[in-house]
Amino acid sequence: MGQAPIGYVLFAEEMNFNPADPQWVNRDRFVLSSGHGCMFQYSVLHLTGYESVSMDDLKQFRQWGSKTPGHPENFETAGIEVTTGPLGMGVSNAVGLAAAEAHNAAVYNKPGLPLIDHYTYCIMGDGCCQEGISHESCAYAGHLGLGKLIVFYDDNGITIDGHTELSFTENVGMRYEAYGWQVLTVEDGNTDVVALRKAIADAKACADKPTLIKVKTVIGYGSPNKADSHDAHGAPLGSDEATATREQLGYKYGEFEVPQSVYDVFRAHAAEGAKKQEEWNALWAKYQQAEPELAAQFKRIAIDKKLPEGWADCLPKATPEDSGKATRLWSQDCLNALAITCPELIGGSADLAPSNMTLMKCTGDFLKGSYEGRNMRFGIREFGMGAVCNAISLDKTGLVPYCATFTIFSDYMRNAIRIAALAQAGTIFVTTHDSIAVGEDGPTHQPIETVPSLRMIPELTVIRPADANETSGAYKVALELSKYKSMPTFMALTRQALPNLPNSSIANVEKGAYAVIEEPNPELILIGTGSEVSVCVDAAKEMGKKVRVVSMPSWELYRDQPLSYKNKLLPKDVPKMSVEAAITMGWGEWADAFVGINCFGASAPGGTCMDKFGFNVPNVVACAERCMKGEKGVLSDGSQGKH
Amino acid sequence: MGQAPIGYVLFAEEMNFNPADPQWVNRDRFVLSSGHGCMFQYSVLHLTGYESVSMDDLKQFRQWGSKTPGHPENFETAGIEVTTGPLGMGVSNAVGLAAAEAHNAAVYNKPGLPLIDHYTYCIMGDGCCQEGISHESCAYAGHLGLGKLIVFYDDNGITIDGHTELSFTENVGMRYEAYGWQVLTVEDGNTDVVALRKAIADAKACADKPTLIKVKTVIGYGSPNKADSHDAHGAPLGSDEATATREQLGYKYGEFEVPQSVYDVFRAHAAEGAKKQEEWNALWAKYQQAEPELAAQFKRIAIDKKLPEGWADCLPKATPEDSGKATRLWSQDCLNALAITCPELIGGSADLAPSNMTLMKCTGDFLKGSYEGRNMRFGIREFGMGAVCNAISLDKTGLVPYCATFTIFSDYMRNAIRIAALAQAGTIFVTTHDSIAVGEDGPTHQPIETVPSLRMIPELTVIRPADANETSGAYKVALELSKYKSMPTFMALTRQALPNLPNSSIANVEKGAYAVIEEPNPELILIGTGSEVSVCVDAAKEMGKKVRVVSMPSWELYRDQPLSYKNKLLPKDVPKMSVEAAITMGWGEWADAFVGINCFGASAPGGTCMDKFGFNVPNVVACAERCMKGEKGVLSDGSQGKH
Repeated sequence: MGQAPIGYVLFAEEMNFNPADPQWVNRDRFVLSSGHGCMFQYSVLHLTGYESVSMDDLKQFRQWGSKTPGHPENFETAGIEVTTGPLGMGVSNAVGLAAAEAHNAAVYNKPGLPLIDHYTYCIMGDGCCQEGISHESCAYAGHLGLGKLIVFYDDNGITIDGHTELSFTENVGMRYEAYGWQVLTVEDGNTDVVALRKAIADAKACADKPTLIKVKTVIGYGSPNKADSHDAHGAPLGSDEATATREQLGYKYGEFEVPQSVYDVFRAHAAEGAKKQEEWNALWAKYQQAEPELAAQFKRIAIDKKLPEGWADCLPKATPEDSGKATRLWSQDCLNALAITCPELIGGSADLAPSNMTLMKCTGDFLKGSYEGRNMRFGIREFGMGAVCNAISLDKTGLVPYCATFTIFSDYMRNAIRIAALAQAGTIFVTTHDSIAVGEDGPTHQPIETVPSLRMIPELTVIRPADANETSGAYKVALELSKYKSMPTFMALTRQALPNLPNSSIANVEKGAYAVIEEPNPELILIGTGSEVSVCVDAAKEMGKKVRVVSMPSWELYRDQPLSYKNKLLPKDVPKMSVEAAITMGWGEWADAFVGINCFGASAPGGTCMDKFGFNVPNVVACAERCMKGEKGVLSDGSQGKH
Repeated sequence: MGQAPIGYVLFAEEMNFNPADPQWVNRDRFVLSSGHGCMFQYSVLHLTGYESVSMDDLKQFRQWGSKTPGHPENFETAGIEVTTGPLGMGVSNAVGLAAAEAHNAAVYNKPGLPLIDHYTYCIMGDGCCQEGISHESCAYAGHLGLGKLIVFYDDNGITIDGHTELSFTENVGMRYEAYGWQVLTVEDGNTDVVALRKAIADAKACADKPTLIKVKTVIGYGSPNKADSHDAHGAPLGSDEATATREQLGYKYGEFEVPQSVYDVFRAHAAEGAKKQEEWNALWAKYQQAEPELAAQFKRIAIDKKLPEGWADCLPKATPEDSGKATRLWSQDCLNALAITCPELIGGSADLAPSNMTLMKCTGDFLKGSYEGRNMRFGIREFGMGAVCNAISLDKTGLVPYCATFTIFSDYMRNAIRIAALAQAGTIFVTTHDSIAVGEDGPTHQPIETVPSLRMIPELTVIRPADANETSGAYKVALELSKYKSMPTFMALTRQALPNLPNSSIANVEKGAYAVIEEPNPELILIGTGSEVSVCVDAAKEMGKKVRVVSMPSWELYRDQPLSYKNKLLPKDVPKMSVEAAITMGWGEWADAFVGINCFGASAPGGTCMDKFGFNVPNVVACAERCMKGEKGVLSDGSQGKH
């Protein structure tokens, strides 16, 4: 209710959009970061004529199967750009949408042909402001100087706990100025529509900085007894108070009753939006004539949303004779090959580019004044990075975003990874230093439970490649998932060198698991992932028995294989033992016995850590022999390595 | 190297500490937030005479079993207060240490008897500054006005990627002013010791605000070829460059050679520290005379570190006849009973106090001017909250911190939970709204994988209570773990009401799992946790067969039981089926067949969600019958509920 005037100005006057085509590529983007107020967004979508939100849908608010869930979900409701709800996520998404706009504009716009030229609007509340993720993304937006990002800060002074004095007394405007934003204030956001219009005009006039418009509002404005109180935060007013509010506001209409005059105003503006799209269509026709090459690229990437013909041929391949390298280095080769073939690839690292090996050499930095560059310099801002990348995917202009950090610090952006999976954002999470083999940096930097715990996120594909070809396979899968299924991928790559394996190939990665050492009639099957596959191979050789070695880079991909393949690769009656430098929990799905590490690591050279915690041939052989004798469960848990 | 002058001023002049007693309760605290520079901290610990760091230890830097790991670890090295490394964590810990000091001072200090009166110093770098967690904790510190917190910002302009212009161009000082900090600048941190002394004096003079001292330094100062370059960030200089550096600095001594004059300076200051402790001992003796009651409390909490005699008797109990309530409400009862019995209990929620039910009614708010209050108002700052609470525990004055948010948003502070487990911080993580039964807020707010994924963190005890007595049991366990083992506990509590179960008791929670319905010769065992236990009970009744129902509030506690108990409760030859409204991964450790939800939830009333996704009696009965017939694996995965 406090945000209604902002909604009116944006959806009835300022924003360009066409309810008949919610995916029009040059529409203005809008993000309701304070997602619990989503009825506001559903209402304006309905008023402007989006088919996705009928009056019946409004009546089904937060009910099973409705198009009007409790927080805005882009995958449920056309017209919603991103999935908000987790606080701070939306405004960080808005930064990503504005970054996508800036990049596309820099790549495609030509004099007189502004193919991509739109604004990104966002409303955020106190909660978003307090969250660390918004600090990261808004500092980044200020650094980038994203002039077409306009954020309304709904300064109502109320959170769930009560008045913001309890916990939130900082000077928000000054902080955003420190980030390099323009900061404007609207003193009376409840009624002063003129001031709102003026602020938006001033925001647009400032081309080299994002703008924060502090709008002072009263939560539950118009409600005689609940306005300016946390009672109006998440709970409905109740029927008596709703009636009293209508009276106080002089609003004569009943529940779910909308006067035609209101529809008329909003739909007239929507009609203007449809006209804007027609004008854009004409521009696009002209653009195709004037810039056939760029137009073809734009059409493939942003409209048809296809990868280039034969794109995967560029991925590097290796044989067991080729000398081994760390998978993070193979990843660098993949990224650099793809960077040339796929100009839609854009991304970077949270200040670990020289460690993650994620710089694309064929392109420059994405910075203020060089938005055409595709190397994003996210700074040490993992959570913001994840949300920005999700939005670059959800911008739906066909960009394929990737972001990188150490595997362990994916914890910092875990909710962004989850939201990528939920909201169908095709972000590629490239993480390196994926086990205790990190070594000297010690247990704070050594993932133990990280990769297994990410396998628990629905709709996320986790890949831990074992060598060069598996790394190429991971990228093949990741780009296809991103582009064609809007699904994220999480890669876990090594710091240390790994040998190239027999049988490894892109096609085998796509199966999720395959035999590295075939053995038609195995007495035992060893299943490894990543750096432990070659330990399994060496252990199998050492044992001199009929041992099949299976590499399982991805549980999710393997689950999707036909039963016939799975029964052949991992037959029920053969003892199976997993070897992975991680928590053993979950391996019961594939194996009977487990070699893993169920404790924290230690600071020492990586090879020493692997050895001390049991990831060496003698220990794997000893455990394998116990497994062949019928022992089950955790056979080695790393505890022998605790000093 | 750039930080050496700060180290000198702090450890040879300013700080009060006694190397002979690293746990002296009134010592000044020091946190190296930029933990990768830990050789600096080990060096000063060695120079001042801490036995924990000998010259041999320095030579064993980052080697297996050494006391000098790659990042500072409080559990490895006496003299290290907290575990840093994950960027932004240290400065957030410093805020917690300063908060603990403020609280203890407010509770115990009397005119002329300043029992607790010390400073908390911290050095942080650009990385810490960029991380969202530091935004949260530093905004909170400014809000609290923690005047005895002094943070040096090592402004060297270099990160791993290169110069900070690539990603970090904000005005840090202005931002901290916006938070309500005093901001000072030392222009030449490489040599100007006088300016450093003056800044510390000015920081101490400002009693009602934390102080940020921006110290401009050159990374790798003194190195002729690597100073001011990211080559000096994480990698050693190398022997040639080290020699060249010694020459440039006019330093005549060899590797690991320390002139006696240097030892003399640092150890003279350490001797002053020992004298300060003697003075404090005298003060403590006087205090015990003057304030016997408070002294007894302080002795129990901060020195003996014991819980009060019979403390657990205060925990509420219920019988199956008592009407059911949500476990978050029972949790409120527990917290409020404990709040009276245990004055060391301090904590709060990330702005969800009325939802998490975590307010203690017997005490006020911990705010500027009322630091004696124990209700912390963290604001919407989960990650900062977690790190602050960890430090309140690691302050080692016996405080028991708790912090609360929705279960799903534990993702935001996941790395703080991990570090609590690693660093032996006894934080109690109280989370509510623990499943799809959250309902209307929808899938962004409904945990699916959260609780299972936390079971993967070593040394963390996860408890999901099923009713009143189990909630009391969770608190019994959590306080004991915090106080006597310095281990964290994670609780997952319901939004919705649950009936009270037969057999549930505090003692049974301590076993991790127990029979709610005994059944001496079961044909089937149903294992549930939290809200699903009562569904299992109803299903068992419905089946009319010999079904044992086991409640398993904590996997970790159950793992520690004697094999005889485990073999009796969950015998090998009886089919077992788990029922939990979460990802099924991992349940293979306890059961043969699983009822769970392996997909995201949906926005609808909580009861509807539970029903649609299969957590109802008919579905559990149907699956149980399949399990009795020998079916294994996932029998119900929630996919029937996807619309």
